[in-house]
Amino acid sequence: MKLVTFSSGSRDRVGVVDVEAGVVRDVTELLPAGTGVLQLIDRWAELGPLVAEQVGSLPAVPLKSVRLRAPIPSPRRNVFCVGKNYREHVAEFGRSGYDTPSRSEALPEKPIVFSKATTSVTGPFDDVESHPGVTRELDYEGELGVIIGRGGRGIAREDAFEHVWGYTVINDVTARDLQRDHKQWLLGKSLDTHCPMGPYAVSADEVPHVAGLELETTVNGENRQLALVKDLIFDIPDLIATLSAGITLLPGDIIATGTPAGVGIGFEPPKFLRSGDVVEVAITGLGQLRNRIA
Amino acid sequence: MKLVTFSSGSRDRVGVVDVEAGVVRDVTELLPAGTGVLQLIDRWAELGPLVAEQVGSLPAVPLKSVRLRAPIPSPRRNVFCVGKNYREHVAEFGRSGYDTPSRSEALPEKPIVFSKATTSVTGPFDDVESHPGVTRELDYEGELGVIIGRGGRGIAREDAFEHVWGYTVINDVTARDLQRDHKQWLLGKSLDTHCPMGPYAVSADEVPHVAGLELETTVNGENRQLALVKDLIFDIPDLIATLSAGITLLPGDIIATGTPAGVGIGFEPPKFLRSGDVVEVAITGLGQLRNRIA
Repeated sequence: MKLVTFSSGSRDRVGVVDVEAGVVRDVTELLPAGTGVLQLIDRWAELGPLVAEQVGSLPAVPLKSVRLRAPIPSPRRNVFCVGKNYREHVAEFGRSGYDTPSRSEALPEKPIVFSKATTSVTGPFDDVESHPGVTRELDYEGELGVIIGRGGRGIAREDAFEHVWGYTVINDVTARDLQRDHKQWLLGKSLDTHCPMGPYAVSADEVPHVAGLELETTVNGENRQLALVKDLIFDIPDLIATLSAGITLLPGDIIATGTPAGVGIGFEPPKFLRSGDVVEVAITGLGQLRNRIA
Repeated sequence: MKLVTFSSGSRDRVGVVDVEAGVVRDVTELLPAGTGVLQLIDRWAELGPLVAEQVGSLPAVPLKSVRLRAPIPSPRRNVFCVGKNYREHVAEFGRSGYDTPSRSEALPEKPIVFSKATTSVTGPFDDVESHPGVTRELDYEGELGVIIGRGGRGIAREDAFEHVWGYTVINDVTARDLQRDHKQWLLGKSLDTHCPMGPYAVSADEVPHVAGLELETTVNGENRQLALVKDLIFDIPDLIATLSAGITLLPGDIIATGTPAGVGIGFEPPKFLRSGDVVEVAITGLGQLRNRIA
């Protein structure tokens, strides 16, 4: 199932999208009052079957007629993110001079985990703010996002997929100067609107072979990133096992799994984003983000 | 006012503490249904005067008879934290070998900001889990926590204190091996129960001169950290201005402002925490945390 959050008037609605038909069905009234996509995922075992059973009988409106927000517009905590998790990106980041020199081009021995503040989350087609007084070095990072379903701690690699609710597309927009100058990455990763997400939260049953998914990023139509999820250095079970070893994962937690080679600082000279640029990130079967830099 | 969250049966209650009398008054019924300390701070302009006016007429129970939780047990997002923000701690951390070598003992030119996951938050007198399968190098970091009242973006240094609701005490418990091995600090800082907080959320009107506050940490009664808030490298207005330059701060956001010299890895050999150790962190007028390592 492909869940969306969309605005209608001042209220957020929960929808189920039929991509082939190009329509969305508003399932909000099927759910207990106040249930958004986050709460639906939290109570999926109970509410998922209800939605699946009844959604077909609801009226469909053209997907293009609604404004999609991020599927989870206000996550219950920061988005977990993984750095340097594709080989060729490790090399380009090392060469770029933006990483700490001693780290350079060596492959990480353990996952590098940081977070993006909740207020960075924005819709799949919303403008990304350029924050001109704050950063001069804006960059993109197309990534696969994993959405946790059943929470837990001490999740073993072999059980990890039982805790995955589904997937989404994330652009881990990064202010490279802040990332470098503040050493820890939170600030450079967390500016408002710097986490476009969506367009859908896609349940795992629609993604039988996640490692086979292909991620593609373009800027103004120019190919920049192209990679397979199977090329992750630390795969999804690794990440869930590492995170949950000492941190209780919660339903609705989002893990941005890392970006492949082809980011702006991978070029010489770097290709930073400018106002008016359009960044698109697409993943097989999960849809496409399309964000203009304001 | 000193706000607390305390458990009574299975429910969380909101209380106002009178430290001298050693009592707490349960103000939950004065507030709209579902209002915890976080929501009370969010609607402080409206609800604060109501509580102040009526609290005196409510029955008082001995503070020792209730179980205090963290004043904000489930923050709405990760706790913002600042690294290397006292001079002598920068030096001891540099010498310890736990920082990235190239960073070493130089003072940071800009605030180093990372986060602790929400699930690390625990009560002021609760046990801290030792996570024996995950870390072997557990350390303490006593810190002043700033609680944001009115949110906002682009907050100027000179307006910063208008956005401070108040203060609390935080122990930024750290798994040093994870902090070092995973490069970015989120994992080493976020293990469950590794953010003792409280005992109170103290409103700013009770703290006329925050820079004059003294922070003291002991382990099993042995003095370890003793510092004045005025010795912060980046002071509270700096931190609020830096964070809010591109990130919208929200009511209830918590900023752990950094730890002074005297942490376990500042000693040779390092003095890591062991099961049974008791760590106390006290700040003038804000009370004291007391947590046993489980």
